[in-house]
Amino acid sequence: MHPVSYYQTLIAEYFSKLSIEKEPRNLYDPIVYILSLGGKRMRPVLTLMAAEIFDTDANQAMAAATAVELFHNFSLIHDDIMDDAPLRRGNETVHEKWDINTGILSGDAMLILAYQYFEQYEPRIFSALARLFSKTALEVCEGQQWDVDFEQRDDVTIPEYLKMIEYKTAVLVGAAMKMGAIVAETTVENADLIYDFGLNLGIAFQLQDDYLDAFGNPLTFGKQVGGDIIENKKTYLYLKALEFANAGTKAELQHLFSIQPVDNSDKIASVKTIFIETGAAKVTQEAIAMYTLKAFETLEKMNISEAKKQELKDFGENLMKRQV
Amino acid sequence: MHPVSYYQTLIAEYFSKLSIEKEPRNLYDPIVYILSLGGKRMRPVLTLMAAEIFDTDANQAMAAATAVELFHNFSLIHDDIMDDAPLRRGNETVHEKWDINTGILSGDAMLILAYQYFEQYEPRIFSALARLFSKTALEVCEGQQWDVDFEQRDDVTIPEYLKMIEYKTAVLVGAAMKMGAIVAETTVENADLIYDFGLNLGIAFQLQDDYLDAFGNPLTFGKQVGGDIIENKKTYLYLKALEFANAGTKAELQHLFSIQPVDNSDKIASVKTIFIETGAAKVTQEAIAMYTLKAFETLEKMNISEAKKQELKDFGENLMKRQV
Repeated sequence: MHPVSYYQTLIAEYFSKLSIEKEPRNLYDPIVYILSLGGKRMRPVLTLMAAEIFDTDANQAMAAATAVELFHNFSLIHDDIMDDAPLRRGNETVHEKWDINTGILSGDAMLILAYQYFEQYEPRIFSALARLFSKTALEVCEGQQWDVDFEQRDDVTIPEYLKMIEYKTAVLVGAAMKMGAIVAETTVENADLIYDFGLNLGIAFQLQDDYLDAFGNPLTFGKQVGGDIIENKKTYLYLKALEFANAGTKAELQHLFSIQPVDNSDKIASVKTIFIETGAAKVTQEAIAMYTLKAFETLEKMNISEAKKQELKDFGENLMKRQV
Repeated sequence: MHPVSYYQTLIAEYFSKLSIEKEPRNLYDPIVYILSLGGKRMRPVLTLMAAEIFDTDANQAMAAATAVELFHNFSLIHDDIMDDAPLRRGNETVHEKWDINTGILSGDAMLILAYQYFEQYEPRIFSALARLFSKTALEVCEGQQWDVDFEQRDDVTIPEYLKMIEYKTAVLVGAAMKMGAIVAETTVENADLIYDFGLNLGIAFQLQDDYLDAFGNPLTFGKQVGGDIIENKKTYLYLKALEFANAGTKAELQHLFSIQPVDNSDKIASVKTIFIETGAAKVTQEAIAMYTLKAFETLEKMNISEAKKQELKDFGENLMKRQV
């Protein structure tokens, strides 16, 4: 296994040679544009990494890795329309730079393009990859729909919330790794285990994102700290705080999550205090640790060398060591 | 080969048993809804028909036929958003009944579901079907984009227009038939020939749609006669009329296609007169006949019985015999 930056370089080189600039330009230019905005390319990195874990050259998994990244960016284009988001990675979103119709159609084309990258594999591998991809893509749509539905609901439970982040985010992490395993033609058991590794790490990562959104260091956390609180987003922290709070605190929290003041600093401070005092912050950290541990436990059962298990564990620990 | 109504009944029975009513309901209900609006199911009929032409039970091609119909309806949902269309088959469009975000996401899910129907075939067939499907789906997106682009352009050529209708409409007709051939595991030659048969028939059908929009019998033509003229749509008739008209008539036609009067009857009458007097109506009929003939010529080369060739020809003639 190589360092993450090695895979990122491989991906950047491969992406620089993708020939997506085709006619009609209004269909393909937005695809080239969103891919040019970069990002950490974590999902395709995981595909390449998994291939190497199972003794296969990373380049052999590059087409599958590309499909994963195309799918991820397709979902960003359509999600940004649904969220009416003006910015993506500090640049205009596709529907802002062009228009909503262009965002819809270019997104559609991008989803189809993703499937086409599997065509570089022989029918048996192609079929296995496309099956996993369809299952995962549909789950991501379901997760997005749950997320939308939850905005209108006041009775979202913790299991429902966990299911939502699993579908919306974590399944793609698991699938990205499993695709590397499929290309490497490892055993079904190994492929399923690396999926579970990715899935649980993905859940841990998303919960950590919830946590850092409130308690992260503004200097090192990529997004605006307190963003979820400003948007009244029902995160794990919020749901746990509601569960643990007494009647008075619960009413206060619900009030705070019903207002949208011009200056949010008091609101953010009050909510964070509630998150800490109810114990919600602590159980969120415990949940993050639990899912991370669950990921590491799947490694035990995997039929690979101890050295490789350690490499995957190091990778996971490094990923979860983001500044709190 | 059976009559069209036989395949339609098979499809209706199969569709009545599709279990798409899943959670989250806001994702899947719109899919169930648009499928419930019916339609003639021509594309899946063609898939089943092609399977039987190549000596395979229609039911074996049902999953592929379903994928084709799901894709078609996915494209209707997204196109209706882009066209801001209030009605589809006399009922509210998905984005009207729900909202635009629901239309986007349910459409996405429907495209993915379409791919999943190929999973019922073994890897070799799966791979061939999914490849053809992706190529076709991307062409349909390109055709839709050309159509959108053409609205803003005054220099659309006849070859460009033909390419647009080929991609937007005809490739899916060809692919629907070829999928039946793939499931039947006929020769590559036969599969390619039935694709060409469907493609050319699809182009003829679309040109006939342009023609009937202006000259169809209001009592038998499904849509509003003159609809394209009211919308200033640059159809084959319009482009040919511009090509053939003298300077004065050309200016008049361009003027007529720049206005949107409250009462369109005079405008429609004037445009139709120009379509006839320039010879545009006649060459459109000739083009329809030419593409129909081209479709029938591919039958000559096909390695099937003469009786089956005649059945396909009868089907094509019947399809093109719509009231003018």
